[in-house]
Amino acid sequence: MALTSTIPAPTTTAELEKILAYAAAASISWAETGILERAAALRTVADYLDQAADELVRVAHEETHLPLARLRGELNRTTFQLRLFGEVVEEGSFLDARIDHADPSWGMGPRPEIRRGLEPIGPVLVFSASNFPFAFSVAGGDTASALAAGCSVIVKAHSGHPRLSFLTAGIVAAALADAGTPAGLFAVIFGTEQGRAALLDPRVKASSFTGSIPGGRALFDLANSRPQPIPFYGELGSVNPTFVTRSAARKRGGQIVVDFVDSFTAGAGQFCTKPGILLVPADSNILADIAAASFPAATALLNERIQSGYVDSLAALTAHPDVEPVVMGPAAFETPPAPTLVQTTATHVLADPEQLLAECFGPAALVVRYGDESELLQIAAVIDGQLTATVHGEDDDAVAPELIRLLSRKAGRVLWNQWPTGVSVTYAQQHGGPYPATTAPTSTSVGTAAIFRFLRPVAYQGVPQHLLPLQLQDSNPLQISRRVNGQPTSPKTPE
Amino acid sequence: MALTSTIPAPTTTAELEKILAYAAAASISWAETGILERAAALRTVADYLDQAADELVRVAHEETHLPLARLRGELNRTTFQLRLFGEVVEEGSFLDARIDHADPSWGMGPRPEIRRGLEPIGPVLVFSASNFPFAFSVAGGDTASALAAGCSVIVKAHSGHPRLSFLTAGIVAAALADAGTPAGLFAVIFGTEQGRAALLDPRVKASSFTGSIPGGRALFDLANSRPQPIPFYGELGSVNPTFVTRSAARKRGGQIVVDFVDSFTAGAGQFCTKPGILLVPADSNILADIAAASFPAATALLNERIQSGYVDSLAALTAHPDVEPVVMGPAAFETPPAPTLVQTTATHVLADPEQLLAECFGPAALVVRYGDESELLQIAAVIDGQLTATVHGEDDDAVAPELIRLLSRKAGRVLWNQWPTGVSVTYAQQHGGPYPATTAPTSTSVGTAAIFRFLRPVAYQGVPQHLLPLQLQDSNPLQISRRVNGQPTSPKTPE
Repeated sequence: MALTSTIPAPTTTAELEKILAYAAAASISWAETGILERAAALRTVADYLDQAADELVRVAHEETHLPLARLRGELNRTTFQLRLFGEVVEEGSFLDARIDHADPSWGMGPRPEIRRGLEPIGPVLVFSASNFPFAFSVAGGDTASALAAGCSVIVKAHSGHPRLSFLTAGIVAAALADAGTPAGLFAVIFGTEQGRAALLDPRVKASSFTGSIPGGRALFDLANSRPQPIPFYGELGSVNPTFVTRSAARKRGGQIVVDFVDSFTAGAGQFCTKPGILLVPADSNILADIAAASFPAATALLNERIQSGYVDSLAALTAHPDVEPVVMGPAAFETPPAPTLVQTTATHVLADPEQLLAECFGPAALVVRYGDESELLQIAAVIDGQLTATVHGEDDDAVAPELIRLLSRKAGRVLWNQWPTGVSVTYAQQHGGPYPATTAPTSTSVGTAAIFRFLRPVAYQGVPQHLLPLQLQDSNPLQISRRVNGQPTSPKTPE
Repeated sequence: MALTSTIPAPTTTAELEKILAYAAAASISWAETGILERAAALRTVADYLDQAADELVRVAHEETHLPLARLRGELNRTTFQLRLFGEVVEEGSFLDARIDHADPSWGMGPRPEIRRGLEPIGPVLVFSASNFPFAFSVAGGDTASALAAGCSVIVKAHSGHPRLSFLTAGIVAAALADAGTPAGLFAVIFGTEQGRAALLDPRVKASSFTGSIPGGRALFDLANSRPQPIPFYGELGSVNPTFVTRSAARKRGGQIVVDFVDSFTAGAGQFCTKPGILLVPADSNILADIAAASFPAATALLNERIQSGYVDSLAALTAHPDVEPVVMGPAAFETPPAPTLVQTTATHVLADPEQLLAECFGPAALVVRYGDESELLQIAAVIDGQLTATVHGEDDDAVAPELIRLLSRKAGRVLWNQWPTGVSVTYAQQHGGPYPATTAPTSTSVGTAAIFRFLRPVAYQGVPQHLLPLQLQDSNPLQISRRVNGQPTSPKTPE
């Protein structure tokens, strides 16, 4: 396949200008495309990707070293996600349509007729991730939710899988063209400088990102430095602390260790939701169980930059005077790196949380020994914002209620007796959290609510029926749920 | 009244530290306070303010020069708003509770049980406005929506009405104490530096602002400069362009002029939604009608800073070579300033939109003469983000559909044959827009949806019933609408 055998060249300035101009024009016509047609186009994209699955998975494997089965599962997740957003669009409640009739007796004085709905924010720039070459990349969740919202999309391809990005982009573009969508609705660009240039372009109205804290922070700062700043939805970093209570350690310590090793080494530890910190009772058997556990073989990391970043962060962690090895062989710093576990105490973590709770993106984790369960609460109180936080406990653990409450203030998702890796795409999913988990703590980048990142409210006051968007017209031509005078209505509710 | 006869001193560093510590502690207990108790507390605040109306209005009048009747109306709007947010809290759908049951046959692989709801973001810092000493100040919409969301609130008082701020804060604090809310749930601080220090404090988790573009941008930049940035909801500036079609000018030009003069001079032109730009057909009678119209007498502006800012911006506008006077007497630049109208052409605006469409906060507006209605579309395409945009037209105007569509992409609220001043607090209201109207185009600062600024989603995976927040428990103890497996349910829906 000639198309995918060479690495795409960086996008030229002239190409970028054309892509931005098309994206601006397409965002207007796509916003006015009916929700049924929009949903159908999302399904067409999913179908085309499924049809090209063999080639996509092959190229992804060549570029990322990720196992074929994992890649096939991730592609399945990606096309499922596109179809799910199609359902969300058809169902229509995402438009949050609200109609207030005029009310001369409204408490603060006569109320005019006001109608409000959510409308697409405009062209969205998506910075794709390295660690999910399908689900958080060219045709991933950000693209799916932005297209669903009615926005045009420009994807900045990740340098870790350029050929796959090019291949995927061609398939997405062909599907959208065959579905009759506007020219230039979707495009992919290559090159770090091109990504920065696009982020600074006034035609881009929102941006999303999945990656490292330094990279995401730099782009966040850039987006905010614009003469006209735009929302920047960055999903950055997380150590995903996991708290094992005394009773859980006693009753199920062995199984917890087996599952923990599975979870922190999954994908060679290259998940945003990897449990990077495991807190265990100092006097339990868990440390002995860990030392005796069987670990998977060393696996190549996604690319050289991630390998070197991993080695640097692991070296910093192991050089800390309060950190000792648990499972750390000579291959810990090799390419590929062998899975590694180190340990410290809760007292040390409380003395130096910044260094000891830093993210180490790769197959390593820190086991933290605690004496009293009150230390779990103290650590929960000092951790930064997290994508996830997990408790392994028993239902009647005295520490559990306060621990769950503390963690709910720090993390986007709180788990009980489960593991954070594997983020299901559902209606109630939440993938986000306070900084540095994300730059936008009121949003999610996974699950159907991710669509709200790319919508902005517009109200119409006294506007005649034929000039209103369909979702706000009295006859409810879209047949959607709406809120009328504050009351929820279904399409069947008589007005 | 000794308490309100002296200007409060700037908050000391020690006082600020105590306020922040209390706000952090109170945010935890207030978040766990039941929604009925939370609603009752909001109503108590409204009741106490109503009971003190005479004194509040008197002090407000002394400090702001605003007419007594206007202030009484604004206070009424403010207490109405507090009670409306009480209703929103009780109704409970603002929690956006979602429950996904475990589903082994979910399309992307077995789905775990996930439950998601919105929770308070934490302590909120509110920068209050000068031009609405009640409705956008100490007990205004930001405070009401943040308290309703379950957040503690620190208000940075505006220097334009310090005695009123102190008085209002005392009443709010007394009401909240009598309602049994946590100590330190609400506080007011004085001083520019104290506001900056609070914005940089890690205990503050979100901030809101209503005011000028330079002031809001500086605070936005400060919030983003934090090691851990927070959402900053700034409502900055808007010229609120008003487009009069040829047919409307012909049929109703005289009335449009009368209403326009009323709207742009209301509150001495010190509304964020003042129609600062009026586009009219060059060959209509509107200019003659304007020249002959009766204007209200000069009125003192809110304070010296606004007076000098107004004079500076009006001087810049009138010095522009393409601007001519329509109604501009020798008192245009006096204290108080006489209402002033100047004019230019659409061609000139298109040649220099930045200078000619700059906000002039006070009793002045720019009349723009156009030749062809296509110029309306061209100007709609170049304007910046706006709080509002208005069309005065006839239902069958050929230009109307495209004009409304263009304006809906630029403004948070689009009006037809009405005037933008006077922002009703309703379920469907939208007070926001793309930058520079606001720094957060996906949000509103007026209307019930304003509560979403101060909420963040949290998901719970596999968490036992007794450890879940009430809104996510199977028995639905709050009796609220929820979404179960993607389907909306009412409290009566059998599960």
